[in-house]
Amino acid sequence: MTNIALGGAFLGTGGGGDPYIGRLMAEQAIADNGPVEVIDVEDLDDDALVVPVAMMGAPTVMLEKLPRGTEANAALEALQAYLGKRAAAVFCIEAGGLNSTIPIAVAAAAGLPIIDGDGMGRAFPELQMVSMTMHGISACPMVMADEKGNSLVLNTVDNLSTEKFARVITVEMGGAGLIALYPMTGAEAKKSVLRGSMSLINSVGQIIRSEQAANRNPADMLARDLNGVRLFEGRVVDVDRRTEGGFARGTCKIEGLGPDQGDTITLEFQNEFLLARSADGAPRAMTPDLICLLDLETGQPITTEQIRYGFRVIVFGLPCDGQWRSVAGLDLVGPRYFGYALDYQPIKSLNATN
Amino acid sequence: MTNIALGGAFLGTGGGGDPYIGRLMAEQAIADNGPVEVIDVEDLDDDALVVPVAMMGAPTVMLEKLPRGTEANAALEALQAYLGKRAAAVFCIEAGGLNSTIPIAVAAAAGLPIIDGDGMGRAFPELQMVSMTMHGISACPMVMADEKGNSLVLNTVDNLSTEKFARVITVEMGGAGLIALYPMTGAEAKKSVLRGSMSLINSVGQIIRSEQAANRNPADMLARDLNGVRLFEGRVVDVDRRTEGGFARGTCKIEGLGPDQGDTITLEFQNEFLLARSADGAPRAMTPDLICLLDLETGQPITTEQIRYGFRVIVFGLPCDGQWRSVAGLDLVGPRYFGYALDYQPIKSLNATN
Repeated sequence: MTNIALGGAFLGTGGGGDPYIGRLMAEQAIADNGPVEVIDVEDLDDDALVVPVAMMGAPTVMLEKLPRGTEANAALEALQAYLGKRAAAVFCIEAGGLNSTIPIAVAAAAGLPIIDGDGMGRAFPELQMVSMTMHGISACPMVMADEKGNSLVLNTVDNLSTEKFARVITVEMGGAGLIALYPMTGAEAKKSVLRGSMSLINSVGQIIRSEQAANRNPADMLARDLNGVRLFEGRVVDVDRRTEGGFARGTCKIEGLGPDQGDTITLEFQNEFLLARSADGAPRAMTPDLICLLDLETGQPITTEQIRYGFRVIVFGLPCDGQWRSVAGLDLVGPRYFGYALDYQPIKSLNATN
Repeated sequence: MTNIALGGAFLGTGGGGDPYIGRLMAEQAIADNGPVEVIDVEDLDDDALVVPVAMMGAPTVMLEKLPRGTEANAALEALQAYLGKRAAAVFCIEAGGLNSTIPIAVAAAAGLPIIDGDGMGRAFPELQMVSMTMHGISACPMVMADEKGNSLVLNTVDNLSTEKFARVITVEMGGAGLIALYPMTGAEAKKSVLRGSMSLINSVGQIIRSEQAANRNPADMLARDLNGVRLFEGRVVDVDRRTEGGFARGTCKIEGLGPDQGDTITLEFQNEFLLARSADGAPRAMTPDLICLLDLETGQPITTEQIRYGFRVIVFGLPCDGQWRSVAGLDLVGPRYFGYALDYQPIKSLNATN
């Protein structure tokens, strides 16, 4: 579970929730209910019901408002009751310290397998930003539940509307809620789910842990094994973070150390890191490519809500799943969607000399 | 229908929606579907399903975002589908130019009777402020629908939570949504619904129209027949109104004319008028008693979103239903709930010399 929480936090690109809380929740659920079977999406019956479950909200809030662990199952139960059908499997909507582990806890408590796949191949801040949207699958009916016992069923005209309604409800829930959404058939899952995500998350977690055990920073091994780019090394000198509209938004300025001495990089985030710019404003990496922050000494992934002044960090970049580089993909999660006047440029071409 | 819209607007105490739009909607629905039967709550089977329907939101927005007329039926349909049961009757959650007429339009389209009763005996700004709450009846499951085709089912832990979630959803719907809520049995309706509201609304509308036809201001006749108080006569010299948090909030200052020359009265509102104060700050009338604004010449009721600088008006007060003067009633709708540091004083004792 430590591997999953660590790998999820890394691929969560700053979002997707705190890995420590996520690990505890999943470990407790497995201790209570036994282990969870990981299945391939191809193992599903075509007419089986499959449901991703997740926590939604600002990661900053999740740190202060711990889930009880039963709300996500309550959301799944309410969705099953609404549909009049039982789920055959759950899966992760995104990678993240929390959103890679909550579905494991839900699967354990519900006695269901979990699919080796997810909807993003990373984390994104809004719930329409999934491969399912590109395949025409509705986020609705969607259920949201909170720790007080409130639950809501949403039926909206499109997935962007689902996000807008769910976001204001999340804020009213105190900043975070548990969700079950994108109910789909096995056949729909086979065409839309990004394959092998849990395996990838596990491998990343393994690399980080074995390098940590060998007292090496995992950045070089991750760069080699994941085709990643070590973008920058430095010290956090400024963090401007606010919880706004149900998101953790802000910027983080990092002054170079070692090979990057004298240079500066600025990261912009909305739950997840979205853009890395040099001091002259030139982009070094941008959404949908992954921007990950690692502790310079330990290689531990750092989420956007954990960053503090003085942290010594490595900024790390990874190419996104190919689906996100399509026109439909960039419409959903490209830099212009987030308000940046930039055309998407792949991280490898932005850093060709690295 | 003109009587209902007029009487509803009067008893709506400034809220409950625009009577002109409400009248058009109900007239159209009756022209399309035939007349609506008004029944006594005692005529219901004890296990029948009964559902109030209404528009929720800032009246200011309702003027700019006209309902298509089908959203309220969509809300009722979705609630029936969710419950797996058909409604035997609908009723008005409150009095109001729109909220007394929308249920008639829904009843006509659905081929259902409407109960001669409502949940407030006036209008109040929040949806937990109904006699049903005092009788322990849940607002949930509640359905909200908008003109775009979005709908949501709410299941909350109490009726105040229903209001809070529904309000943010209303804002996300563009400021107004159609709602079906407080699904209840005939037996529950018999113990909780305020009786005779549609008849009262109709009588008030009749008085206003016959006095208008006789070229008399209806205030004196309304004061006599409804045990009301003619509080003030003057000219609107200032209106401070903002649409905020899904409500129309503000204050309205009126300078005296005729018998009130030299004096001033200030009205405070949140969709509905909540408090009338003299120039020295002394209260003249307060929630849950009704504060109604009438055009000085025509006697036409004026809603909080219609008030403009220069209007010549009569401020009129009416005692509320006795249920609202109980401890439970004042907890729900008394002046302290709305943030005024005042103990409730009945309008008759505040204006004993009138």
